[in-house]
Amino acid sequence: MAALQFNLEHTDSASAARAGTITTDHGTIQTPIFMPVGTVGSVKGVTQQQLKTDVQAQIILGNTYHLYLRPGMETMEAAGGLHRLMNWDRPILTDSGGYQVFSLAGTRKINEEGVTFRSHIDGNKHLFTPEKVMDIERSIGADIMMAFDECPPANSTFKYAENSMHLTHRWLDRCWNHFNNTPDRYGHTQNLFPIVQGAVFHDLRKASCEYIASKGATGNAIGGLSVGEPEEVMYEIAALCCEHLPKDKPRYLMGVGTPWNILENIALGVDMFDCVMPTRNGRNAMLFTTKGVINIDNKKWERDFSPIDPGLENEWSQYYSKAYVRHLFKAGELLGYTIASVQNLAFYLWLVREARKHILAGDFMSWKNELVPVLKTRL
Amino acid sequence: MAALQFNLEHTDSASAARAGTITTDHGTIQTPIFMPVGTVGSVKGVTQQQLKTDVQAQIILGNTYHLYLRPGMETMEAAGGLHRLMNWDRPILTDSGGYQVFSLAGTRKINEEGVTFRSHIDGNKHLFTPEKVMDIERSIGADIMMAFDECPPANSTFKYAENSMHLTHRWLDRCWNHFNNTPDRYGHTQNLFPIVQGAVFHDLRKASCEYIASKGATGNAIGGLSVGEPEEVMYEIAALCCEHLPKDKPRYLMGVGTPWNILENIALGVDMFDCVMPTRNGRNAMLFTTKGVINIDNKKWERDFSPIDPGLENEWSQYYSKAYVRHLFKAGELLGYTIASVQNLAFYLWLVREARKHILAGDFMSWKNELVPVLKTRL
Repeated sequence: MAALQFNLEHTDSASAARAGTITTDHGTIQTPIFMPVGTVGSVKGVTQQQLKTDVQAQIILGNTYHLYLRPGMETMEAAGGLHRLMNWDRPILTDSGGYQVFSLAGTRKINEEGVTFRSHIDGNKHLFTPEKVMDIERSIGADIMMAFDECPPANSTFKYAENSMHLTHRWLDRCWNHFNNTPDRYGHTQNLFPIVQGAVFHDLRKASCEYIASKGATGNAIGGLSVGEPEEVMYEIAALCCEHLPKDKPRYLMGVGTPWNILENIALGVDMFDCVMPTRNGRNAMLFTTKGVINIDNKKWERDFSPIDPGLENEWSQYYSKAYVRHLFKAGELLGYTIASVQNLAFYLWLVREARKHILAGDFMSWKNELVPVLKTRL
Repeated sequence: MAALQFNLEHTDSASAARAGTITTDHGTIQTPIFMPVGTVGSVKGVTQQQLKTDVQAQIILGNTYHLYLRPGMETMEAAGGLHRLMNWDRPILTDSGGYQVFSLAGTRKINEEGVTFRSHIDGNKHLFTPEKVMDIERSIGADIMMAFDECPPANSTFKYAENSMHLTHRWLDRCWNHFNNTPDRYGHTQNLFPIVQGAVFHDLRKASCEYIASKGATGNAIGGLSVGEPEEVMYEIAALCCEHLPKDKPRYLMGVGTPWNILENIALGVDMFDCVMPTRNGRNAMLFTTKGVINIDNKKWERDFSPIDPGLENEWSQYYSKAYVRHLFKAGELLGYTIASVQNLAFYLWLVREARKHILAGDFMSWKNELVPVLKTRL
């Protein structure tokens, strides 16, 4: 049982792309990696077996806000944590609930102590403080816990972003202290990753990187991107953060993004990603494939009996035809959501595995530059 | 390529229960058998791989009415039939659409020619005649096609039931002629099963059995049961039908039923069953297990971390806990519907496999009489 370790295996000569290995008590993760989102203790529409076999997920993400509300921490602790509740023996990362509190919850009030909010389920009032969130993430049993932060809107003023960043830093101090004063749960080592904020302002981002790096955490995250800013701005800020974050620790860009977002950010030095896009867009009939993007609702697929994605090796992408999946969506059949989710997640995991191969082979940039326009194609 | 064959292996000495093997061009089926219902070309919430591996389904059922409306017969024929559309290489049985026309469709008008009805999807007008239904089932490519019949309500008068039965017989003649004058599709042999009607009236049922048996079909079905009549009446009529239907052909009791209904009807001589109960009730939080019935919504399961059903060998029933499945239902997660559906179908298939074992071993009745009260237990 040991804290998370990062072994940086190779850095690309033509970019900042890196290949590495993260070791946790629940196994190793080869980076760059994409983490499927298991919001409420389930990656929507996908079984744990499918996640392992078909998607080849190495780590999944749970949402603190959602799990805190359902099933609640009493049941979570009685189960022995999320790994046991859902029967998942690979690593789990939990977000801090901050983002959901701001985007989902009803009337919320933020002050130095924390955030008071109303549950989106029953309207009941709750208080999240940095200490409380650490306790919850400990109870969930995450291998990687995220610090409680404020994620300011994309169009924040400098003043708002600056104050918010300082609040996030003060909350980080409290998270850090509480984390260090509480024991690991369930017999495996838990890790805390701090989060860089600072909106789109270079000075703030640089200061935030330096502040959070000073904690010496086993990994660091970049928050507050992909929240409405233009793509170029996201890349610019991600590049700046990667430059100012430790090289010997994994860098996690939260909530990003499209397949091409992921490739571009890998080129900038990001190691870890998560996003609801593959599952959420999948349930809305959008399929990501090795040949481009498919809107499977479209009439053009009605009699296209070719496999969803012959470019992927897993059984699913080869087994079901476009016409069949379109039929399932038209008929509102649950199987359609499952097939689309597995296809998209399998594609995202294929994408990061391929990226890793090409980083190690030394031709990442030429591979990426050739692939991005293909992936963006609307089929 | 040959017509369906039924090999009756053993008849129980203490009951009319039978064990046999049905051979079709898509493989063999060991009877008694339960057929999962794949309404619109998908067993709701379950993948084709799960059907084979976890459920151990040997044959599935498709609904003519639903498939005729979606994806429609042009797409079906372009696909090369339902086996290819859904990528299912085991046998498929299709109902005749009669039951759905009466239970689902909007304003319908029945006359000698057939039934005019409005689609429950878009209100468009359609006409089903015996000939049309044969053409549709041919296009679907079912290994076993069902004759077009009228299914009278449970509370029909003798006069209504008698007229309805005669109409069903005249429609059967037309089905039979059209079936014999049209070729098999897609290179495998298709079979037509006629359906006994006659509501709850012994004379009518006996006459209907004799009439449909006279066709010399490769199998025969009992319709018009489990439509609201008391259970004892269902058993009484099923027993009477089994007595008057050929012994050397499989007997299929349509739309039945609960686990205990299935065991009792096996004892009466039924070989084949289908029902939406395992999947529909599963999606409504009702789990059938080897120890009894679970309402997984119930608070008593909140912290029961034992497997759903240790009595089943498949990975699912052992892998997920009751508390986890309850959590998924409470959170409205798709995975809950899938787990419940797989559990229930795996249980139904286990039930008929066990029944077969005990018929062959000669202790079917004592096994059944011991098991029925267990299966009925509300856990």
